[in-house]
Amino acid sequence: MRILGLDPSLSSTGWGIIEVENNRIRYVADGFIKTEPKTDLTERLYTIYKTLCDVIELYKPDEAAIEQVFLNSNAVSTIKLGQARGVVILAPATYQIPLTEYEPNQIKKAVVGVGHAEKGQVETMVKILLPGCKPKNNDSSDALAAAICHNSFHGANSFRMVK
Amino acid sequence: MRILGLDPSLSSTGWGIIEVENNRIRYVADGFIKTEPKTDLTERLYTIYKTLCDVIELYKPDEAAIEQVFLNSNAVSTIKLGQARGVVILAPATYQIPLTEYEPNQIKKAVVGVGHAEKGQVETMVKILLPGCKPKNNDSSDALAAAICHNSFHGANSFRMVK
Repeated sequence: MRILGLDPSLSSTGWGIIEVENNRIRYVADGFIKTEPKTDLTERLYTIYKTLCDVIELYKPDEAAIEQVFLNSNAVSTIKLGQARGVVILAPATYQIPLTEYEPNQIKKAVVGVGHAEKGQVETMVKILLPGCKPKNNDSSDALAAAICHNSFHGANSFRMVK
Repeated sequence: MRILGLDPSLSSTGWGIIEVENNRIRYVADGFIKTEPKTDLTERLYTIYKTLCDVIELYKPDEAAIEQVFLNSNAVSTIKLGQARGVVILAPATYQIPLTEYEPNQIKKAVVGVGHAEKGQVETMVKILLPGCKPKNNDSSDALAAAICHNSFHGANSFRMVK
């Protein structure tokens, strides 16, 4: 089974694919979709959606996972994130791929072992859990963490490190 | 030229199409896309996007208009609106239809003549400006108002009432 992890934002949406086989997880691919602030919002949203559709067609994930939104006190930031998140969620929906949401603390707990881990710790553990993986940036690392978390919660058994 | 007006929300997204010919505007169609709160967010967003794509394929608008977002102080409402707005914006973007944003006051001014009109006044004027049109609900009436505003600002000449 393949899991697509997603970390949406308007400027840089992270994505990551892992494969689960015999209770083991393996790195498949990761990346991020950068859009320029000076570009039209319509074009930025379309780039995010279209690229994710291409990723789905290429890697054919069976399930998807996304971090629950962090509610910012800044309404302008929240609406921007919301708009990006809408088109990110739409990509798996277009291919009837079930999507599960996880709280940030659930993801950190599944990956690092504690709910209040630092960003750096998440990336370090993603690299250890997925040997050979060098996440492209923080966003794709967070996306892979969401995918790992999904396996940990929804796998046939709880996840084990690949050794 | 046909203009698609849009009024996004997660529970009920309004849409409306008007035709502009020889500086006159004519009602073509309107409607709203209702989604149930108990349905999955993925399904709700997909329903909104897919229905708008169907509307675009059926009525083939050349340009589109949308109201600038009203920034709510409630972050949960803002993220919900943002997600719906993201997929609403994506629909014209998918068909390379240019989309213009208007401030609520610009739309009211274009339709009613004053920037601080009541909701009821907008609907009344939409009916007067588009004879034969009985907007399906407030959301589709607001969508038609956005389309009328777009013509008023971007038409070859400023809009005139159809008599």
